Amino acid sequence: MHIAFDADDTLWHNEPIFDLTQDRVAELLRDWVPPEELGEQLNRMEKRNLQLFGYGSKGFTLSLIETALEVSRGEIPGAVIQEILDAGKAMIEHPIELLPGVVETLERLASQHPLLLITKGDLFHQETKIARSGLAERFAGIEIVSEKDDATYRRILDRYGIDAERFVMVGNSVRSDILPVLQIGGNAIHIPYESNWELDKIEHRGAEKEGFFVAESMLEVPTSLQEIAALGWTAPTVAPTDA
Amino acid sequence: MHIAFDADDTLWHNEPIFDLTQDRVAELLRDWVPPEELGEQLNRMEKRNLQLFGYGSKGFTLSLIETALEVSRGEIPGAVIQEILDAGKAMIEHPIELLPGVVETLERLASQHPLLLITKGDLFHQETKIARSGLAERFAGIEIVSEKDDATYRRILDRYGIDAERFVMVGNSVRSDILPVLQIGGNAIHIPYESNWELDKIEHRGAEKEGFFVAESMLEVPTSLQEIAALGWTAPTVAPTDA
Repeated sequence: MHIAFDADDTLWHNEPIFDLTQDRVAELLRDWVPPEELGEQLNRMEKRNLQLFGYGSKGFTLSLIETALEVSRGEIPGAVIQEILDAGKAMIEHPIELLPGVVETLERLASQHPLLLITKGDLFHQETKIARSGLAERFAGIEIVSEKDDATYRRILDRYGIDAERFVMVGNSVRSDILPVLQIGGNAIHIPYESNWELDKIEHRGAEKEGFFVAESMLEVPTSLQEIAALGWTAPTVAPTDA
Repeated sequence: MHIAFDADDTLWHNEPIFDLTQDRVAELLRDWVPPEELGEQLNRMEKRNLQLFGYGSKGFTLSLIETALEVSRGEIPGAVIQEILDAGKAMIEHPIELLPGVVETLERLASQHPLLLITKGDLFHQETKIARSGLAERFAGIEIVSEKDDATYRRILDRYGIDAERFVMVGNSVRSDILPVLQIGGNAIHIPYESNWELDKIEHRGAEKEGFFVAESMLEVPTSLQEIAALGWTAPTVAPTDA
């Protein structure tokens, strides 16, 4: 069985760092936009820029700057733009804070299964985060991708020669970590994060089906894996006998 | 034999698009810095930001904005920052212009060898460029990496189960495409591009050794491959005989 993990908001905190950056910028822009309204403006800008920038910290910083120009109608002083840039850099350099149970759970599982890391976002930033997390050597493979859809998971499973039914994805995003994996016939364990990114707020619809499990934290993942196993993991390895 | 190709300035023009963007920004900033001096300021900023941003178009755009703030001591109007952002976006959206001989050479070689694409830079931008190039299906594998050093090439060769002596890398960058591949015992064909990016201007030192070939364009790559073959490609496949 191959077990794959999402990284941001599954292994370590990520969204609070983006939120903190956004709050800082909201404060900087309060002369032009009420702080509570910045989020909506920023989301609109991010969606507009998504097909040019993709996901990740550098595109987010560019969208922050462009939002600042938009809400101030270009009146924002250069010094404030520099502060936004500095907030973006601070976000990129932010220390990695692992979520509860990550180290012990990965250690426990790594002795029994090949583990993969499958994460979406900025290639360079994700690599530096993985390096700084100290977790890299727990993983038999690390895949940094620009989008997590069923085609992406199929490509990764092909690359490693994994059957979908013997694959489990663990992550906090229903849209990126759960639905596409169920779609291709794999198993998925959802660990909801405290909050969820705006673009990711979709219903669980379609997820109430075979192969879908929920854990409250990484510490519960081994239990979920046992449930998956009990439902017939080992079945495909039993050769049919001629009666 | 696996043959791998760099993408930017090997399969398609890239540097002129960055240069064009830089020229546009130099024009926008001529009230604060003589256009011919912007390049040096920008290079300094890019080097300073490299360990935060890595390589690629979004980091380049952020460094352009930060350089504009620096040379103007924050006096640059918001409208000009927006123009710089727009120049960065135009760079990202710029149409792909293939270099001479690319299509026919890849087509010819793909029928005889598994071809790989190994390119450095922004994951999302590289993927969109590969998609827009129309070349993706020529390649048995596509690897987008954040740095091209010997460890990167070793990892890729391991992943595909390729012996270094049966691997040829084709690219325009001595530092990224040639030296690390020779370092791990592979073969490399250098196709010099018209100009070379500032950080890449290092000597050919260390490259005058076994496995190193030069071609003037993609059209000459098959000839270089024949030279490599003549030097003993097939030797490792001949089993030793007991005398």
